Amino acid sequence: MKIHFSSIAVLAICLIFSVACSNDEYGYKIKNGTAVYNTPERPADQISMIGFAVDPIDTVRIGFIGLGMRGPSAIDRFTYIDGVETVAICDLYLEKLEPVQRLLERRGKARAAEYSGEDGWKELCEREDIDLVYIVTPWLTHVPMSVYAMEHGKHVAVEVPAAVSVEECWQLVNTAERTRRHCMMLENCVYDFFELTTLNMAQQGLFGEIIHTEGAYIHNLDPFWDEYQDNWRYEYNKKHRGDIYPTHGMGPACWALDIHRGDRMKTLVAMDTDAFNGKKLAQKHGEESYMNGDHTTTLIRTEKGKTIEIQHNVVTPRPYNRMYQVEGTEGFANKYPNEGFSIIENMDGEAYVSSEMRDALMAEYQHPITREGSLVETARRVGGHGGMDFIMDYRLIYCLRNGLPLDQDVYDAAEWSCLGELTRVSIENGNIPVAMPDFTRGEWDKTDGLKLHIK
Amino acid sequence: MKIHFSSIAVLAICLIFSVACSNDEYGYKIKNGTAVYNTPERPADQISMIGFAVDPIDTVRIGFIGLGMRGPSAIDRFTYIDGVETVAICDLYLEKLEPVQRLLERRGKARAAEYSGEDGWKELCEREDIDLVYIVTPWLTHVPMSVYAMEHGKHVAVEVPAAVSVEECWQLVNTAERTRRHCMMLENCVYDFFELTTLNMAQQGLFGEIIHTEGAYIHNLDPFWDEYQDNWRYEYNKKHRGDIYPTHGMGPACWALDIHRGDRMKTLVAMDTDAFNGKKLAQKHGEESYMNGDHTTTLIRTEKGKTIEIQHNVVTPRPYNRMYQVEGTEGFANKYPNEGFSIIENMDGEAYVSSEMRDALMAEYQHPITREGSLVETARRVGGHGGMDFIMDYRLIYCLRNGLPLDQDVYDAAEWSCLGELTRVSIENGNIPVAMPDFTRGEWDKTDGLKLHIK
Repeated sequence: MKIHFSSIAVLAICLIFSVACSNDEYGYKIKNGTAVYNTPERPADQISMIGFAVDPIDTVRIGFIGLGMRGPSAIDRFTYIDGVETVAICDLYLEKLEPVQRLLERRGKARAAEYSGEDGWKELCEREDIDLVYIVTPWLTHVPMSVYAMEHGKHVAVEVPAAVSVEECWQLVNTAERTRRHCMMLENCVYDFFELTTLNMAQQGLFGEIIHTEGAYIHNLDPFWDEYQDNWRYEYNKKHRGDIYPTHGMGPACWALDIHRGDRMKTLVAMDTDAFNGKKLAQKHGEESYMNGDHTTTLIRTEKGKTIEIQHNVVTPRPYNRMYQVEGTEGFANKYPNEGFSIIENMDGEAYVSSEMRDALMAEYQHPITREGSLVETARRVGGHGGMDFIMDYRLIYCLRNGLPLDQDVYDAAEWSCLGELTRVSIENGNIPVAMPDFTRGEWDKTDGLKLHIK
Repeated sequence: MKIHFSSIAVLAICLIFSVACSNDEYGYKIKNGTAVYNTPERPADQISMIGFAVDPIDTVRIGFIGLGMRGPSAIDRFTYIDGVETVAICDLYLEKLEPVQRLLERRGKARAAEYSGEDGWKELCEREDIDLVYIVTPWLTHVPMSVYAMEHGKHVAVEVPAAVSVEECWQLVNTAERTRRHCMMLENCVYDFFELTTLNMAQQGLFGEIIHTEGAYIHNLDPFWDEYQDNWRYEYNKKHRGDIYPTHGMGPACWALDIHRGDRMKTLVAMDTDAFNGKKLAQKHGEESYMNGDHTTTLIRTEKGKTIEIQHNVVTPRPYNRMYQVEGTEGFANKYPNEGFSIIENMDGEAYVSSEMRDALMAEYQHPITREGSLVETARRVGGHGGMDFIMDYRLIYCLRNGLPLDQDVYDAAEWSCLGELTRVSIENGNIPVAMPDFTRGEWDKTDGLKLHIK
């Protein structure tokens, strides 16, 4: 935090009123008990990315960075999509490359250019023959790599969360706006079948006006911690309080509410439990300290008076649950533990519709973006979390090839990722409200509803 | 709010610091952005009611006030319980009495003394031959009637919520402590079979340490508003923001966490949606204004670092849901839409146990208080929300007849009811944290866990 001489007077007054001040334009000030985030002015060399699209790209040439947990399966999925060329692959570790090359060969594709070591990814980003850099690396590298790629003229697809702090969110937004490059977070959960179908139902008014949505990442990671290179995921959970992995819940919850397509998130409060199982996990690692609360709950209020609830729990034994729920003035949809809807026309919405009615509605309201040929069949076969990963990659390429706006824009990436910091700020200050920043800088109601484009 | 001369200096300073002051000892002050509730000192003539019991009462003589929505069915349930005499009945309206008299006669009981009109309930409370006054009237009369009854030497059972404000909660606590009379809120949901069984499981450690619980009152009241005398329930919802009907969610959620039996609630934040359907409801009444948010969500943090979540929604079409959930370090129980558990010994808790295992566990962990003779059978037959109402009334009489502490004490009544005001204060001040009052005045950890007594 830099303290300029001209701000000492402000600082003094702030101290008197017990207000935490920051001269960081991406930070917050506590005003009347609320942590108010600044929305900095848009620099002159940036243009809003609302509705942004580039000319059609006939063959999308991709460079993949990261061949760990998610990379190789992504590369495999792309071999099933037309109009794609895997031009280059990169991993910190040289030995990760050959298995992927053999995967490409098995799928009848050409071997890719290879990069490895600490700076291999930069060289990949500097190539002239790549349109898209697909980043599947540990969280802390997401923004540095995304920014570098965009600054070198590449569109970016980056794993979740796209950014780990509010400042990083602004870096993505500012860089995309300045370089006019797509920056799409790889949030797969919005593409799951129930989520897409209920999104379509919601947009067609089957549930009336949507007033409250929920989402979560409830997934006991006990079997998985050791699979991350250098324990990076455990290390991050150990050091940070708050909902550090919010996007799987946020994606569908925000899309159903047209966030920055008619509404915007205004106020956030968060609360966590102590780290009961977290501390036991730390002890297994011979450590004492563990920051992330076992169970974190976040509430968000929007400009239009809707609410979103997001939960996070990766350490207690309970069934997986993304808590996807959409509540409207005339109906309701809920995914876990059983997919179901209620609508006012059926028993006044007092009970879930029968499974026959549910299946019929799911078929009737199947989202248009999935109605293309054998896409659903291919998705389920190729897989990736039952198919949603494939739909996500398919849509990314479809939109690039057809010169359409991508489904997720850089503002989604920022809005869904910023909870990592905002929840921590609320929690560490005694669960105070947080006035959220507006990554669109006033353009959140320029668009009349979320649209997933079809040519 | 009285403003004393001596407080003007304080008030002035408060105004400078934008702090809302109140001279009301039961109110709150906003300090550093938190609404801090005062815990007033215990007056010298009051004694804590923790663990309170009276000598056994062989025949419990009851006076019932209120023969509207809940009264007659309660009177009917008591005709199936031994050691009970319905001595007197009272309603505002004379014409409500005779049908209840006929009910008593059909059940082979003597007719009761009759009271009606504005002050009939006072005369009932003044009778010398009543042990217990059972209050089933509109919310705003609960505390005035309970206080009057206790001051006239009667134990009290009172419908939910027991009190509509924090001050009213203190009135119940103070009166009970001063008069040494039981004051039990008629929270039936803690007695439902799944709730009692999972409480027993939790207390026996099947889920490890309980760290997070949930509850709600999600019940579309659209079919019911007109059934309340003079629309009193609609009128109250119309005029008040916040979770005004929290106890059905709070009861089981708090019992599972030993609230004031080892832990206490410390911090609350609440958030609501706008009144989308609420306003439509008001328009049906030819009115414009409707305060209660369609969906209200509340988060509470305890002294021991646990959290509770409570929701409220009485106006949108969706299936009934009390959201009962208990999350522990080694297991998990969830009631809606399907009753299920997960425990770490079964597939690491990653899936709900099979229905066979669930049924076996439910049988094995059936709560001791329900194992008496044919109680469960009678409860299911006599009914009242599937039997839980009967268990509640049965337990009330059982404990009084055997000289045992009641299951719910006056602190439960206060703690579960106070959310009505606390949530409104959080919401109306921009979702700020509320430091909750301690109705036990420091004795919240005197008891080592909740105990439902058996002779």
